[in-house]
Amino acid sequence: MKISDIGEFGFIDAVKDNTIFRPQSVVVGIGDDGAVYKTTAGMEQIAVIDTMVEGSHFIIGKTASWYDVGYKAVASNLSDIAAMGGVPTHLVLSTAIRPDMDMADLTEMYDGMKAICRKYGVNILGGDTVLSKGSLVITVAAFGEVEAGKAICRSGAKAGDVVAVSHCVGDSSGGLDVLLHGAEGYKRLTQAHKLPVPQIELGRLLVAHHCHSLNDISDGLASESNEIAKASGVVLVLDRARIPVSPELQQWAAAQHTDCWHYVFNGGEDYELIFTMAPRDFDALQQEYPDVTAIGTVEAGKGCVYLQHDGQQTLLPPSGWNHFRNEGEHTIGYNDARRT
Amino acid sequence: MKISDIGEFGFIDAVKDNTIFRPQSVVVGIGDDGAVYKTTAGMEQIAVIDTMVEGSHFIIGKTASWYDVGYKAVASNLSDIAAMGGVPTHLVLSTAIRPDMDMADLTEMYDGMKAICRKYGVNILGGDTVLSKGSLVITVAAFGEVEAGKAICRSGAKAGDVVAVSHCVGDSSGGLDVLLHGAEGYKRLTQAHKLPVPQIELGRLLVAHHCHSLNDISDGLASESNEIAKASGVVLVLDRARIPVSPELQQWAAAQHTDCWHYVFNGGEDYELIFTMAPRDFDALQQEYPDVTAIGTVEAGKGCVYLQHDGQQTLLPPSGWNHFRNEGEHTIGYNDARRT
Repeated sequence: MKISDIGEFGFIDAVKDNTIFRPQSVVVGIGDDGAVYKTTAGMEQIAVIDTMVEGSHFIIGKTASWYDVGYKAVASNLSDIAAMGGVPTHLVLSTAIRPDMDMADLTEMYDGMKAICRKYGVNILGGDTVLSKGSLVITVAAFGEVEAGKAICRSGAKAGDVVAVSHCVGDSSGGLDVLLHGAEGYKRLTQAHKLPVPQIELGRLLVAHHCHSLNDISDGLASESNEIAKASGVVLVLDRARIPVSPELQQWAAAQHTDCWHYVFNGGEDYELIFTMAPRDFDALQQEYPDVTAIGTVEAGKGCVYLQHDGQQTLLPPSGWNHFRNEGEHTIGYNDARRT
Repeated sequence: MKISDIGEFGFIDAVKDNTIFRPQSVVVGIGDDGAVYKTTAGMEQIAVIDTMVEGSHFIIGKTASWYDVGYKAVASNLSDIAAMGGVPTHLVLSTAIRPDMDMADLTEMYDGMKAICRKYGVNILGGDTVLSKGSLVITVAAFGEVEAGKAICRSGAKAGDVVAVSHCVGDSSGGLDVLLHGAEGYKRLTQAHKLPVPQIELGRLLVAHHCHSLNDISDGLASESNEIAKASGVVLVLDRARIPVSPELQQWAAAQHTDCWHYVFNGGEDYELIFTMAPRDFDALQQEYPDVTAIGTVEAGKGCVYLQHDGQQTLLPPSGWNHFRNEGEHTIGYNDARRT
């Protein structure tokens, strides 16, 4: 069945169930001009927004299923909330769709959104559905909360801090490459690309452990580390040998005769966290959450990043992927969108 | 200069000034993973989202300038907040743009957004900018506040209520027709289409005067009145002779040998308000805000609308424009998008 057969109201009726997973804060949900919700006393609100465009951020049947698209459109937003130290609570969404889209595909996309919302207790409060003559465009705006004064910004890094990351870096863009090559296997990489994990639990622990600065790795480690350095007015010195790279990514890079560091530094959509904190606090964090790795230190200086490697120290430029300059006609980029 | 010449970061730098018009509630503005803001004790939060697609919701140079597009993308969201009785406070936005777009056009679009945000004291907290190979798609998610328990829903209409509307209905779709015909004059109509006025002041007065049910007229009076009737489980009886229609719209309809009621009932994007309230409360409201007109009454019944006209009473179906069924290849619809 096409969306044009069922009509907009039929479509809304088909997807509106199973959207509330945190009922206590909803006053007015789907079905009015606006949604109304309660906030928690003592908490500040976080707002984020992220868009994915068919053909640019994903290629159906090649790099993603419709389920993956829905899941990831929410995941990228929840990652931004995690990167402030917050708890996600609600979202609203907008989809621009073609009239010839199949209802089954759209329902699958909503199933992906609902699955991740259920997992993290996030309400789908409503949205907007419009016609597009071109690619599907999905925009999610998500909200969250963080204890007043406790949001972790990019700008708080201090000389003497440890620089650390969560889990491994580069898997998602490695997975994208696997999918674009149509290669078999490398499940860890392709899962990292298709169904990324927003690091909400770790974000909350970073608030508890007095983390100084925090970014999610949506545009590659080079870009994100430079953002912290620039916003904080410090120098980050990263030790390449200490950066956690998965065996699968190393294996894929070796099979392709490519350099795995390209995926780590210039890749994107890992949605892991990069953060800086006092060494003692980092040790305490690691006791509670072992999947974090110290990869460098913060020094006084002027907003740049150095990479130590084989006894040398070279400037690491913020060479993350740039949407407007690097997009070829048929390429899919390392493509998380940057907030203004 | 093209957007591809300046790059994404250059673009962000070019538009990020003059975005905070309500500084007291901003904790973290543009430039981090998420924006952080304070809410007001005793208030509940309202969230809305609305998308406009180039070629579907507007045709540049014909129905809108880029300034108008930015202005209206915000106005439609503020209207949804007004339609809950709320005060708009913040927004985040996402634009999917073509790499060959001219920076001057984009800057103009942001100027339109900033102008209406300044007017209503709304902060632009951040956003997302992605590449689109097709039409420009702009999505705004806006937030507002309303006193706890005081949001006005569609579902509160009561038998005995007065049904009323603000100002005149139908001007916007009349203005769209004027613009599509390339006709001269009819400034009131074309302004109503290009730079609609969100009825925030009236929405706040409706909260103060105990309004029972409220919708903004984004999809025509037929659709919106039916939404109230259906959500409230009542019958609305409207008197066609009492519905306020501007002389300009009557003049345009006469010149076109068309029926002005088509614009009133099936048009859209007026962003006026339709509401129901106790007769005594309506009288008190009218003392304070004269530009409202009683157009009917609420009766007990089963969720439908009757139109009285020339001594007859006929069923008025919710025949507002439907995005998916009515869109021709080159037409521009009556096109406010419906919330799910």
